[in-house]
Amino acid sequence: MTISQEVPAYDTLGTLGEAAVLGRIFPRLPHAAAALLGPGDDAAVIAAPDGRFVVTTDMMIHGPDFRMAWSSPQDLGWKAAASNLADVAAMGAVPSALVVAIAAPSTSPITLLEGIADGFRLACAALSPGCGVVGGDLSVSPTLTLAVTAFGDLQGRAPVLRSGARVGDIVAVSGVLGMAGAGIRMLFDRALDAAGHPDAALAAALRVREPELMAAQFTPSPPIADGRAAALAGATAMLDLSDGLALDARRLATASGVCVDLESGTLGPDSRAALSGGEDHSLLATFPAGTVLPAGFRAIGRVREGGGIAVDGVIYTGGGWDPFSGWDNAVG
Amino acid sequence: MTISQEVPAYDTLGTLGEAAVLGRIFPRLPHAAAALLGPGDDAAVIAAPDGRFVVTTDMMIHGPDFRMAWSSPQDLGWKAAASNLADVAAMGAVPSALVVAIAAPSTSPITLLEGIADGFRLACAALSPGCGVVGGDLSVSPTLTLAVTAFGDLQGRAPVLRSGARVGDIVAVSGVLGMAGAGIRMLFDRALDAAGHPDAALAAALRVREPELMAAQFTPSPPIADGRAAALAGATAMLDLSDGLALDARRLATASGVCVDLESGTLGPDSRAALSGGEDHSLLATFPAGTVLPAGFRAIGRVREGGGIAVDGVIYTGGGWDPFSGWDNAVG
Repeated sequence: MTISQEVPAYDTLGTLGEAAVLGRIFPRLPHAAAALLGPGDDAAVIAAPDGRFVVTTDMMIHGPDFRMAWSSPQDLGWKAAASNLADVAAMGAVPSALVVAIAAPSTSPITLLEGIADGFRLACAALSPGCGVVGGDLSVSPTLTLAVTAFGDLQGRAPVLRSGARVGDIVAVSGVLGMAGAGIRMLFDRALDAAGHPDAALAAALRVREPELMAAQFTPSPPIADGRAAALAGATAMLDLSDGLALDARRLATASGVCVDLESGTLGPDSRAALSGGEDHSLLATFPAGTVLPAGFRAIGRVREGGGIAVDGVIYTGGGWDPFSGWDNAVG
Repeated sequence: MTISQEVPAYDTLGTLGEAAVLGRIFPRLPHAAAALLGPGDDAAVIAAPDGRFVVTTDMMIHGPDFRMAWSSPQDLGWKAAASNLADVAAMGAVPSALVVAIAAPSTSPITLLEGIADGFRLACAALSPGCGVVGGDLSVSPTLTLAVTAFGDLQGRAPVLRSGARVGDIVAVSGVLGMAGAGIRMLFDRALDAAGHPDAALAAALRVREPELMAAQFTPSPPIADGRAAALAGATAMLDLSDGLALDARRLATASGVCVDLESGTLGPDSRAALSGGEDHSLLATFPAGTVLPAGFRAIGRVREGGGIAVDGVIYTGGGWDPFSGWDNAVG
């Protein structure tokens, strides 16, 4: 008896064509309450009730930013949404809408884009209900690329800049520190095959054994609503921790002309991991001395005179991640 | 005597690192009058005076969208700006700002990004003075990719949708028809080397011999201000001709539930090229019968009962360009 080994037939972006692909994706995308006109015309129209809007843009690229053997399509959509929502939150704004440009190989199965759309929908529902996707673009590319632009509503408040920290302020954080970085290090330690390539089965096993670290890396949950809460509580400066606490706190310190002095005892069991690990997308903020910190924030240091960052009063020069020098050209 | 053949030393994105690259690019970018807070923080803040904003996003990918042997870096920035500005104009809005995400190989010379930034500056100055770049993202990728998101101000007017055309309306266009498509066909006919690869010297010669067609392809000049003019003149429907008159007019017809009947005698010497050629980024609009067309627009047909498009009263089924089925995987 012969058992035929059939390759499962599936639709690809190339066989379906643009109109059919869009028809499959649109129903999966989250609706934005602020959309006065949604996808389908040359452009969308979004409400900006206070006469301004916050905007940020960020790309995710196959290779430097993710491995297909490790991340599911849904993970990719979730993370692209979460990282952009965090940038909006870090201004003290409430996310209102996203536009999403995706470039993918024409041989990609439609399930890749369906999964990415699902990730956007689930992330918006979990992290910023009411925010949705109002438009986008589909292109063909040899390199799977997600380019997301996110919008937010300041609700009449001044934006919280990274330059407003003052000597004596409390330094506080909302969200995890170093967990996304610990997750990616663990994947490189334990989810490569014998030839050094990313291995899907090993990553799946790690998801079972280390669910928190893997979730921090694949589907981060930055505290989006805490951006608005920080602004309402009088935060003097704020930013999103995308490149690690050390590097991002130094950016805040430099922009503000102060020294950010961190207490190692507040940084968890591995303060070095907390300082260097990128991609947490937690919110780092400074508040005037005496502020009752909003729920979600915990104090991790003080603003001092000087420059750069310190740990327990000693200047710290360790760094983080540079997208142009940190990638080893591997893909997988 | 030995003449040493020195390879010119230049800085690359990888050797410079992100901060230095941004420092080289920022001064070249155009300022946006609507920017309340420009680049440098987690997000920018843009004015939206009438409490709404128009948004559109579009990618350009090395390979399917351009060849490095033919396009200069400045061309790439110009075209990315122009195509997005045209989408904003097609809503009847005035462009206010752009955000630009660029992913490039780490081995790219800094001059690549400097040239792209110059293209954005020159295009904004020429096509939509006052519009500028308010933020962006830089990533490393094996595939050079530009993802642009553009914003516009409706100045209190309703957006002009593609769905508003009514039987009896005048069909009119502002801008060239088929020239960008004729330009790219000429490049594929006359600017490939013996092995079939894009050739820089042959393209440079074509720029001298066919300056209008080459400019239409490399540095298109869509009539951005005519979008607002059309809205003020009472346009019932409008869109940007990115995929060719036939395909885009059919989109307008389908959205409006009408037939767009074009007069071949108004489409220039080669009506087939005018119908099929993409990337003109001209504005196609419909106006109520009897409207005095705004300067820049010329009548090219009438809206009839029915569906789809017709030429001289005969239903036309020819098409345009589909990004997922039209690329042959060549790069160059």
